[in-house]
Amino acid sequence: MTFVLSELEPVAHAMADAARSAILPYFRAHDLATENKLDDQDFDPVTAADREAEQAMRGVLRHMRPHDAIVGEEFGSTAGTSGLTWVLDPIDGTRGFVSGTPTWGVLIAASTEAGPVFGLIDQPYIGERFVGGMEVARMTGPLGEKPLKTRTTQKLSDATVFTTFPEVGTKEEGIAFHRVASQAKLTRYGCDCYAYALVAAGQVDLVIEAGLNAYDIQAPIAVVQAAGGIVTDWSGGPAHNGGRAIAAANTDIHTAALQILKAAM
Amino acid sequence: MTFVLSELEPVAHAMADAARSAILPYFRAHDLATENKLDDQDFDPVTAADREAEQAMRGVLRHMRPHDAIVGEEFGSTAGTSGLTWVLDPIDGTRGFVSGTPTWGVLIAASTEAGPVFGLIDQPYIGERFVGGMEVARMTGPLGEKPLKTRTTQKLSDATVFTTFPEVGTKEEGIAFHRVASQAKLTRYGCDCYAYALVAAGQVDLVIEAGLNAYDIQAPIAVVQAAGGIVTDWSGGPAHNGGRAIAAANTDIHTAALQILKAAM
Repeated sequence: MTFVLSELEPVAHAMADAARSAILPYFRAHDLATENKLDDQDFDPVTAADREAEQAMRGVLRHMRPHDAIVGEEFGSTAGTSGLTWVLDPIDGTRGFVSGTPTWGVLIAASTEAGPVFGLIDQPYIGERFVGGMEVARMTGPLGEKPLKTRTTQKLSDATVFTTFPEVGTKEEGIAFHRVASQAKLTRYGCDCYAYALVAAGQVDLVIEAGLNAYDIQAPIAVVQAAGGIVTDWSGGPAHNGGRAIAAANTDIHTAALQILKAAM
Repeated sequence: MTFVLSELEPVAHAMADAARSAILPYFRAHDLATENKLDDQDFDPVTAADREAEQAMRGVLRHMRPHDAIVGEEFGSTAGTSGLTWVLDPIDGTRGFVSGTPTWGVLIAASTEAGPVFGLIDQPYIGERFVGGMEVARMTGPLGEKPLKTRTTQKLSDATVFTTFPEVGTKEEGIAFHRVASQAKLTRYGCDCYAYALVAAGQVDLVIEAGLNAYDIQAPIAVVQAAGGIVTDWSGGPAHNGGRAIAAANTDIHTAALQILKAAM
């Protein structure tokens, strides 16, 4: 089964537009109703925005791609017959969302069993959209359209690394992360999917995370890799099923960081 | 000496507009020239944007308020005769700036010796501006204009707290911060001045920081307090000279957090 950009990209944009419309009325609304999926220690609020956005995206697919499968954070799996699966996270970065920071995003990936072939990261409040896959890597935002291209940083000591530690991941994973971070030039915290967009946009060099679901990482994989980066799990294998992920601007940085992570785990 | 909003606010907006124009061409520019003010451990890049923005703001003041004093991060102090001082940080959050995250800001405060009377926090990339002081507290942004009003959260266990730890502050200060954070509902990292804007906008409850300069905190003090919040140092005294600061949505949260900080230091 092969899929082409001209078929998939308009669908992804239509879904992202629908998600924007669904989410924005809830962003920074004062009486935002939240519920916790997990207990308080693993704070992970789900909002009405999350559900409405996924429903809106599923509505687009029912019209435009009724034979594709869907895996969504909120409403689980829907079978398909085309060989293509849309992997959706309506609001990645719910901690950021409920805090009012504009670094959460809508994640949309078009995937086969081998992983994502096209991905989109949208930040509705800023009006930024990062897309990658099938020979395309570009963003649109407040300053217009730009190609996405990762950095050429060669040494870890020159690298900027992003993470969601200490918010996500086990203590052991956190220690491994800090071994890498201690050798980097600058460590930044808490941007969720937006950090991957910044790798693709050539602004930072590394994202290291753990405890991910497939829908958290598939769109970032497509966007980062289309821009020239590399995304794997912490042993260098495929990351598209979730778990521990490292996204690097290039193979030099990836190799250097992976070596430390492997030694630490 | 008394000053009125109708005189000061247009000046602050003109300065913020000038700073936006100066800074945006440098944001996410790939060959961004940075220099370190401190050694690598205390990573604090200064960019051409920082300098050009402060020069642009000083240019506005030369035309519109030539008798006011100026204190700027980049070019130090300029004496005045009016009794009013403009306290300027052209780019607060340089770590965020060089990482491409849109959570840095331009800080402008109009102050007397007793502290700021009017403040402005601008995020040029998003196009967000938060102003407060002299009976005004409002923001403009992608979703239009909104009044600023802090939250009514009563218990620390329901609070969201922001900080720049572990990036800024001593180890001892970091430990004191974590005593507060461990009792809060949610802790978020690394937003610099943007976190104060979120307190004013009723999105989060607390910002706790240390190692601040006067120009880092004067505009946030004006905006947060105009929106109903309270900003002090860690012993409950004035914070406008910098050092350790706590900004809270209301007196309940402020009292609860301050008690823990005092006990820990």
